[in-house]
Amino acid sequence: MTHLYFEDMEVGDRCTAGPYLITKSEIIQFAKQYDPVPRHIDEEAAARTIFGGLTACSANTFSIFILLTTQLQPRFHVLAGLGWDELRLPNAVRPGDELDLDMTVLEKRESKSKPDRGVLRNQIYLRNQKREAVLQCIANIFVARRPDANAPPAG
Amino acid sequence: MTHLYFEDMEVGDRCTAGPYLITKSEIIQFAKQYDPVPRHIDEEAAARTIFGGLTACSANTFSIFILLTTQLQPRFHVLAGLGWDELRLPNAVRPGDELDLDMTVLEKRESKSKPDRGVLRNQIYLRNQKREAVLQCIANIFVARRPDANAPPAG
Repeated sequence: MTHLYFEDMEVGDRCTAGPYLITKSEIIQFAKQYDPVPRHIDEEAAARTIFGGLTACSANTFSIFILLTTQLQPRFHVLAGLGWDELRLPNAVRPGDELDLDMTVLEKRESKSKPDRGVLRNQIYLRNQKREAVLQCIANIFVARRPDANAPPAG
Repeated sequence: MTHLYFEDMEVGDRCTAGPYLITKSEIIQFAKQYDPVPRHIDEEAAARTIFGGLTACSANTFSIFILLTTQLQPRFHVLAGLGWDELRLPNAVRPGDELDLDMTVLEKRESKSKPDRGVLRNQIYLRNQKREAVLQCIANIFVARRPDANAPPAG
């Protein structure tokens, strides 16, 4: 499988992944371990909240986002993540939702100190089957430059 | 247990939670589900990376951060999270690490449209037992105002 290098990616290029089906059992199990409050683990209590039913905890939604980033197509040579900006969860994730990930390159620049890499700044949307964003952020990553990018032209 | 209101919290106030002990088994189990790459799930492969051993995946670290936010002391009346800015993972989390959370109020302002709440902007650090930050971010939250805050003075 071909992996794209920094040189192969332009501002506006898109990668996608998914769908991922989230189940009630995943929502409850995850929240019991990392966010054990009634609206994420108790169906009856959740029905009485303004959400009217179980919703996934933020860490569960974030984890599905991370899983889908490992499945983005086309693939590219990620060296390291540099972090996330403006991370928001605009809508709740519910049992049975099918989530897909959409990444668009916002900016690219070569690293000043490390000639083997460039920095991509990517707009991320995780959306449900109704096309509502359930997570959005800007992800900053180091992507490898093509190994021969600095070599003199052949011949 | 007393919960603090928006009026009770000042810029510079701190809340803390932890420690949380992360085990090798948690790291591997979590990553198998949400970030199944060798450096998070295979001890031998991880030993050959620049990290020299297993490290927790970013979603695992984020989930522990969320868990500890539910345990912050002193407690306060959170109405909703508004998201996170400048989320970074400056150091790796490893098996046996003991993590604690530290939250400091950076800014506070009353909501213009909703008199029942205010917005806190908080600096967050999740640190290991060597006091190295393993996650840092700015968290924006709605906190309830004291119910009688707008009532005329008694008498």
